Amino acid sequence: MHSDRYKRGLDKLKEVDGEAGERVIESLKDVAPDLADYLIEFPFGDIFSRQGLDLKSREIAAVAALTVLGHAAPQLKFHIHGALNVGCSRQEIIEIIIQMVIYAGFPAALNAMSVVKEVFQERDKAGMH
Amino acid sequence: MHSDRYKRGLDKLKEVDGEAGERVIESLKDVAPDLADYLIEFPFGDIFSRQGLDLKSREIAAVAALTVLGHAAPQLKFHIHGALNVGCSRQEIIEIIIQMVIYAGFPAALNAMSVVKEVFQERDKAGMH
Amino acid sequence: MHSDRYKRGLDKLKEVDGEAGERVIESLKDVAPDLADYLIEFPFGDIFSRQGLDLKSREIAAVAALTVLGHAAPQLKFHIHGALNVGCSRQEIIEIIIQMVIYAGFPAALNAMSVVKEVFQERDKAGMH
Amino acid sequence: MHSDRYKRGLDKLKEVDGEAGERVIESLKDVAPDLADYLIEFPFGDIFSRQGLDLKSREIAAVAALTVLGHAAPQLKFHIHGALNVGCSRQEIIEIIIQMVIYAGFPAALNAMSVVKEVFQERDKAGMH
Amino acid sequence: MHSDRYKRGLDKLKEVDGEAGERVIESLKDVAPDLADYLIEFPFGDIFSRQGLDLKSREIAAVAALTVLGHAAPQLKFHIHGALNVGCSRQEIIEIIIQMVIYAGFPAALNAMSVVKEVFQERDKAGMH
Amino acid sequence: MHSDRYKRGLDKLKEVDGEAGERVIESLKDVAPDLADYLIEFPFGDIFSRQGLDLKSREIAAVAALTVLGHAAPQLKFHIHGALNVGCSRQEIIEIIIQMVIYAGFPAALNAMSVVKEVFQERDKAGMH
Repeated sequence: MHSDRYKRGLDKLKEVDGEAGERVIESLKDVAPDLADYLIEFPFGDIFSRQGLDLKSREIAAVAALTVLGHAAPQLKFHIHGALNVGCSRQEIIEIIIQMVIYAGFPAALNAMSVVKEVFQERDKAGMH
Repeated sequence: MHSDRYKRGLDKLKEVDGEAGERVIESLKDVAPDLADYLIEFPFGDIFSRQGLDLKSREIAAVAALTVLGHAAPQLKFHIHGALNVGCSRQEIIEIIIQMVIYAGFPAALNAMSVVKEVFQERDKAGMH
Repeated sequence: MHSDRYKRGLDKLKEVDGEAGERVIESLKDVAPDLADYLIEFPFGDIFSRQGLDLKSREIAAVAALTVLGHAAPQLKFHIHGALNVGCSRQEIIEIIIQMVIYAGFPAALNAMSVVKEVFQERDKAGMH
Repeated sequence: MHSDRYKRGLDKLKEVDGEAGERVIESLKDVAPDLADYLIEFPFGDIFSRQGLDLKSREIAAVAALTVLGHAAPQLKFHIHGALNVGCSRQEIIEIIIQMVIYAGFPAALNAMSVVKEVFQERDKAGMH
Repeated sequence: MHSDRYKRGLDKLKEVDGEAGERVIESLKDVAPDLADYLIEFPFGDIFSRQGLDLKSREIAAVAALTVLGHAAPQLKFHIHGALNVGCSRQEIIEIIIQMVIYAGFPAALNAMSVVKEVFQERDKAGMH
Repeated sequence: MHSDRYKRGLDKLKEVDGEAGERVIESLKDVAPDLADYLIEFPFGDIFSRQGLDLKSREIAAVAALTVLGHAAPQLKFHIHGALNVGCSRQEIIEIIIQMVIYAGFPAALNAMSVVKEVFQERDKAGMH
């Protein structure tokens, strides 16, 4: 039986990007289902469910962080979708990533922009904003 | 004579944190004044002066990015002040940094929290929010 | 009232390095007590309390990871103490850090060795192995 | 004629993962054979041949370090095979990588888990533990 | 109308690697043309156009930096071509990357060497040194 | 008895910065003298003693790499001294570090410039160029 943290986390994950979230959980099923549980419980059940910072701002922070990390393209893709799903405009996403040039240089921003391009194409096909 | 980018950048820098900005520029005066010029022109004159993302959101993105980097305490300090100066609450700063545990682990967040503590103490002394 | 995860985490934290753990929790009390709670619940209550990898091996993995990160001296210090507390020899600590030259180069290993030196001196003074 | 360090390194490399090691050496043959020599001599001939930390613990440290680095998938793959070859269980590998969430966040651990999955599938096909 | 910085940058970019530069600019056209402008103006128009360090030395520094970053393969590829275009020998490129083992470990150098191999093959086909 | 690699390394180390090198070796004497040996043998005895890239270019590459790493201030300090000792001008050092803004952003370059300032002051006092 799942904890309250898990249930709250799953709801929050669905609010950000349910479909992509399910794919991550599915991909961990065989090898490390506990990591999928932690992912739902801690980032989504604990952190994203906190008061004090609205969900759109959390997604702005996530896109910034994942751009700067440089080695997290799948997670950046997830949160670009997520940011758009919770109210960011495409232009805002682009602005965040351009801004990251300041903190992490051009390579991190250019590589993030390739992910942006992929996401925008997926959403164009699906008729999403 | 300074370019328009420089003037626009200096205005924007003052809007974020003029006093701290001056200290950075002053510290570069002897060794690399051109780097101070680039700092004013590019991050502040070009990027922070762009439309498409409000200044508070830019500061949220900066605090997130600099927390995740891990090696940028002086710049993180600058942007925690900056974020508070342009409308973030203390609670929002704390929330952003707690969220960074997800992307960069506990060490990055814990070390950023030491910087937060320093900033809050400085602002308490100065009677700032 | 604290959760089972918290209680289990606090016990595990005490097993690794109770005194240092208390200092971290204390230092977060004013600014971000929730981050202290997460630190006890997630790394110690959830992860370090898992079966499948013994505590000494977990500390070896922690020392390796924190050496490679490069920006986590306070956490590395904590886990060098922790590794020694749960059964690593001083020589094993040194071996792990020398090995990290392979993955992260000499600077990361040399800087970690400064932390090792500090820890050994503290333990010499306290008459600990 | 090869040095003692080279011979000792080649033996140690074969103990960890001879087949994968040969592929790396082969791939460097045209462009930088000296780098292949250094790889055999320094990490394997010097470091992995040292006393003071058993080979299984060295592989635990390697998997931890390479997970945290985030940009070293081919080397992580090599050392997951290596860890399994020198006595780690599959569960232990998974535990190390889940633990890395603490130090480097979820993206590093999730991306490492994709490498784990690949390794396990290769070993399933080959009938290896 | 483009600024002097843009024109100077475009000239410098062509001096380093015009064809690859055009592909980057083209790829940003739809999603973030402004980032392409910044890329021409700031790194090439401002920095690479400075006196005080010759172009070959700048390319040596770029190859070193991008090897160490670890997450910047496309940009490393660009600057290996660039370094060769402005007067580095193939041997010098290999030497820089082998040297990076010291600062960032074997994984960063080995992964950079895969990019070198790709570049050399492209240039062999094109009959370039 | 020391190997040829050690002797060659010690000579090369002295050529780069003998005094600072001795301090590093001294500081490792109690805790990890083997790491000091490796430092002399591998980076200096093997790599810096190679043909194919002149010593000044190697120091340019080192300063670039260590600036970008962000967590290697002591090693950056060593190599700024080293670069100046083997023929770089102060202006060239400043140029390399300003250039690193492109690959690693402003924080890495600004923090490296603090190290530059320290080195220049030390050399001013000692009457060195």
